[in-house]
Amino acid sequence: MNTFGNNFRLSIYGESHGPVTGIVLDGVRPGLELREDSFTEDLGRRRPGAEGTTARVEPDPVKILSGVYRGRTTGAPLCIEIPNLDVCSAPYEGISQHPRPGHADLTAALKFGGFNDPRGGGHFSGRLSAALVAAAVVAKKMLPGYAFEAKVVEVGGLKENWGPAIEAARSEGDSLGGIVECRVKGVPAGLGEPFWDSVESLVAHAVFAIPGVRGIEFGDGFAAAAKKGSEHNDIIGPDGRVQSNHAGGINGGISNGQDLLFRVAFKPASSIAKAGIPGRHDACFVLRTPVIVEAAAAIVFAGLQK
Amino acid sequence: MNTFGNNFRLSIYGESHGPVTGIVLDGVRPGLELREDSFTEDLGRRRPGAEGTTARVEPDPVKILSGVYRGRTTGAPLCIEIPNLDVCSAPYEGISQHPRPGHADLTAALKFGGFNDPRGGGHFSGRLSAALVAAAVVAKKMLPGYAFEAKVVEVGGLKENWGPAIEAARSEGDSLGGIVECRVKGVPAGLGEPFWDSVESLVAHAVFAIPGVRGIEFGDGFAAAAKKGSEHNDIIGPDGRVQSNHAGGINGGISNGQDLLFRVAFKPASSIAKAGIPGRHDACFVLRTPVIVEAAAAIVFAGLQK
Amino acid sequence: MNTFGNNFRLSIYGESHGPVTGIVLDGVRPGLELREDSFTEDLGRRRPGAEGTTARVEPDPVKILSGVYRGRTTGAPLCIEIPNLDVCSAPYEGISQHPRPGHADLTAALKFGGFNDPRGGGHFSGRLSAALVAAAVVAKKMLPGYAFEAKVVEVGGLKENWGPAIEAARSEGDSLGGIVECRVKGVPAGLGEPFWDSVESLVAHAVFAIPGVRGIEFGDGFAAAAKKGSEHNDIIGPDGRVQSNHAGGINGGISNGQDLLFRVAFKPASSIAKAGIPGRHDACFVLRTPVIVEAAAAIVFAGLQK
Amino acid sequence: MNTFGNNFRLSIYGESHGPVTGIVLDGVRPGLELREDSFTEDLGRRRPGAEGTTARVEPDPVKILSGVYRGRTTGAPLCIEIPNLDVCSAPYEGISQHPRPGHADLTAALKFGGFNDPRGGGHFSGRLSAALVAAAVVAKKMLPGYAFEAKVVEVGGLKENWGPAIEAARSEGDSLGGIVECRVKGVPAGLGEPFWDSVESLVAHAVFAIPGVRGIEFGDGFAAAAKKGSEHNDIIGPDGRVQSNHAGGINGGISNGQDLLFRVAFKPASSIAKAGIPGRHDACFVLRTPVIVEAAAAIVFAGLQK
Repeated sequence: MNTFGNNFRLSIYGESHGPVTGIVLDGVRPGLELREDSFTEDLGRRRPGAEGTTARVEPDPVKILSGVYRGRTTGAPLCIEIPNLDVCSAPYEGISQHPRPGHADLTAALKFGGFNDPRGGGHFSGRLSAALVAAAVVAKKMLPGYAFEAKVVEVGGLKENWGPAIEAARSEGDSLGGIVECRVKGVPAGLGEPFWDSVESLVAHAVFAIPGVRGIEFGDGFAAAAKKGSEHNDIIGPDGRVQSNHAGGINGGISNGQDLLFRVAFKPASSIAKAGIPGRHDACFVLRTPVIVEAAAAIVFAGLQK
Repeated sequence: MNTFGNNFRLSIYGESHGPVTGIVLDGVRPGLELREDSFTEDLGRRRPGAEGTTARVEPDPVKILSGVYRGRTTGAPLCIEIPNLDVCSAPYEGISQHPRPGHADLTAALKFGGFNDPRGGGHFSGRLSAALVAAAVVAKKMLPGYAFEAKVVEVGGLKENWGPAIEAARSEGDSLGGIVECRVKGVPAGLGEPFWDSVESLVAHAVFAIPGVRGIEFGDGFAAAAKKGSEHNDIIGPDGRVQSNHAGGINGGISNGQDLLFRVAFKPASSIAKAGIPGRHDACFVLRTPVIVEAAAAIVFAGLQK
Repeated sequence: MNTFGNNFRLSIYGESHGPVTGIVLDGVRPGLELREDSFTEDLGRRRPGAEGTTARVEPDPVKILSGVYRGRTTGAPLCIEIPNLDVCSAPYEGISQHPRPGHADLTAALKFGGFNDPRGGGHFSGRLSAALVAAAVVAKKMLPGYAFEAKVVEVGGLKENWGPAIEAARSEGDSLGGIVECRVKGVPAGLGEPFWDSVESLVAHAVFAIPGVRGIEFGDGFAAAAKKGSEHNDIIGPDGRVQSNHAGGINGGISNGQDLLFRVAFKPASSIAKAGIPGRHDACFVLRTPVIVEAAAAIVFAGLQK
Repeated sequence: MNTFGNNFRLSIYGESHGPVTGIVLDGVRPGLELREDSFTEDLGRRRPGAEGTTARVEPDPVKILSGVYRGRTTGAPLCIEIPNLDVCSAPYEGISQHPRPGHADLTAALKFGGFNDPRGGGHFSGRLSAALVAAAVVAKKMLPGYAFEAKVVEVGGLKENWGPAIEAARSEGDSLGGIVECRVKGVPAGLGEPFWDSVESLVAHAVFAIPGVRGIEFGDGFAAAAKKGSEHNDIIGPDGRVQSNHAGGINGGISNGQDLLFRVAFKPASSIAKAGIPGRHDACFVLRTPVIVEAAAAIVFAGLQK
């Protein structure tokens, strides 16, 4: 279903070319200061404009429709809507006859018996991640001792100076993938559940909701599989604190007091001019995703607070 | 919480050194043939005995306590219990004073205020994965057209002939990690949800419940991050079918008719004699995990059936 | 939380004096015809205007913001918003100092630390039942073989001709309660769950979300408590069908093929001029509730369909 | 499904004539003292033996299988099993051919395609309420400031001295229904949710899981429907406290600091010798239900604690 979380619960709606993208937040702590411009910074980080990103203009003027009174959250469900201002559906005519590779055009039609809205990916559009980022603005306010720091660490296989490669991909009508690393500071020890709802399970669940994710790893991640136990273990000091961070901040599904550390692999954009796919394209949408990855983590921790 | 799933719902309980490990399955299809020896094969695949695995003897005699009548599932909740026959708690005395690195000893104590059962990891023990495997025996019966095929593809960084490396690690009192690849054949197109409950989200959620998992990737996975869109896209043929499998069988969170394909990174075992950690140890527990990885996938798909 | 249901899931938001009341529906069947005027009839039944109902004018122009494409549901989350057109907040100044008896003014302030929106009851307003009725318009379309028939059967203790009593109450600045009976025809046998999610449990859960409900009973209801088993049992005929309906259409929590039959007791409105409570008042809001009671039942059955 | 609750979550299993009835509790507070004899008193209140109750002997020796270590709850899932010691299935032969009126025999067969366990009602048996009572023993320990006081207030239409009426019903091979009133003292103000998860919704949801319930009402209940607002409103005193209890302790779905007060109507037992129904019968099982009604309330409030 299109709902996430128990104690901090998000319900998302909207289509790429519909009137709005929106999200309803339940379990918001009362008394948080929140204005419509509280969303500007994080939504700005997601917006295109950097090299390699799409030309679609998205000023993202946020409307708070409920759950705020006199500038503070009330504790009642908080609905945020982001109007879709710059919608150009013309290039998407014919998608239902010609589903785009790598997109959900085909699978959406199969799932919904052909009744899905195909324009710009409809409900499957990366556009919905704006709502996720907006929700996380509220989540972050519920987590005053935390810091969320995600950044791109690799593009097209390059660990630095990837600008020329992106430019080359664009000029070829192609695209590049990349890797985002996210560090969450200030996570208290003792969060998460032993079995199904480990911190990794919850974060991975939320992260794979982001379009284009192909993998996630915590701490040493896939490299841990090539290590020995004596190299991978995090020693516990005489003060009872974990002293290194090969595990990514989690043991047995429960936060251990270290930073949460994980990396997310994004595929190269599926929409490429080279393949004759219509629409506006990102040569490297991964540049826009760090704030989205932070958002996925933030909504998880907002739900784990007592 | 310790429950997973909506339409096929599992509630797990038990401790490593308690009387039983158990699991309650809700949403089981009525009329499936099920006997207590139906679990023998899959639980045998998880049992130690292969080179590099622990000496703990676990005959795993399963008891079905409810939900089966005259050899068939009834549709009512099905409870499976596996007695813990070979329990030796002596080596774990003192764990609460000396939490083992890499284990949940410390985090469990922090989460539960020191009231957790520390013997053998208590509720955090890998022992609970036996219950997961047992649940998946039922799940697989609900999925007659599927085939689940997981195997170890890498140990200690080696893609083949890893036996000597495991033997060397054992003789050093050390341990090795590894990678398991899982292929699920027969997945119908159209399963999964657009946003939060993408197939990747659900599978990752379940997989990270398995102790020792450090990462998961679908299809090209992390390698996709170094590819171009023109290399990664799966072309759709004139018959409307996806023709390659870079995506791992999923587009936009929805199964596309290809095999589901994913890989899971396991850390090296944290309990190593080298570090003076008491108890019986697996030099390479990853050898026992393919059936557990299959189980995680099977319970997800059992919940996605109509 | 403010979400209901698993397979047909509703998330409600909005305040009495905020810009909108809205609801997000997940699990909507794709392909249903739905236009913005599809809601007119049922919302009209809830609207004031009948004798004894409030003077607040609520034309209820519905906006569909997502989940519909070319006049049909897509299967993606469907968001319905109803703007609050006729909002007059002035009479509610001072509510936080002087909580109204029988309302949520006091309990809302206690629950949310005083940050709740007090105007017109805020998120606790009966106004939100408009969103419930709108959601049920969609639910009813998912239930083509059903008929929902609720009606007022008692007002102020009178089983008929209650008009003069309402008029008398109004002229005294007082209010009257009443009872609504709901019959659901066409319920297939075999719906519901044995234990927690019996049909009665689900219907009662939804019905008690309606403001002002004090009780619910199924079939013979409270009168059953004064009967003998030989009087209350519903005989099963030789054709295997239940032949009478003392149980209200449910045995063991599961629908038995008879009509679902239940009654709901509504309290008299708490806002009465007699007690000096400001705002516009219904002398007998129960007259507006049959369509809301139907809605509660419809959303339950939409979630129980396969 | 057969699970209830979010933060205090119960999963029930077992059949009347299977080896056990059990329940898994998740979200148990760590550190509570709990022994196997902690359940004796409440299970004894549910046990037959009083006039009018069945002859089935149920000593109810409880086994704690997980979640307790050194006499205290650990915070991990707590599994309680009650063996079914006195099982006599012979009288139930033939039930599948001759479903008993008023029971779930017919509806269970319809729901589960005839694969249900019909002996003694199988999973639909009143026997499962023993597990509910056992779970509530733990719930009550999580609620040290509360007192749960339920009692029978009416049997067969009589408000007192109903013994002769029960004896007469038994000698006629018939049965009587009745009403249980439950008062919960010590409920803090501010619990519950505005819309779907009102306190009434949650309590009613749990209460209708008890076999044989036909209705529930809070405070003035159905009588409120015949009152005027000026009679029904609970005045708020100058100290900000609610001064009477017509509402049953809830306003707008949220507890108001008064006692929670509700009444539950039970049908007369469906199994009556008069109708030739085989098995052991309660002439008036309502006498055994007060502790079950308390249990339903207790599990709700355990889930509402912060």
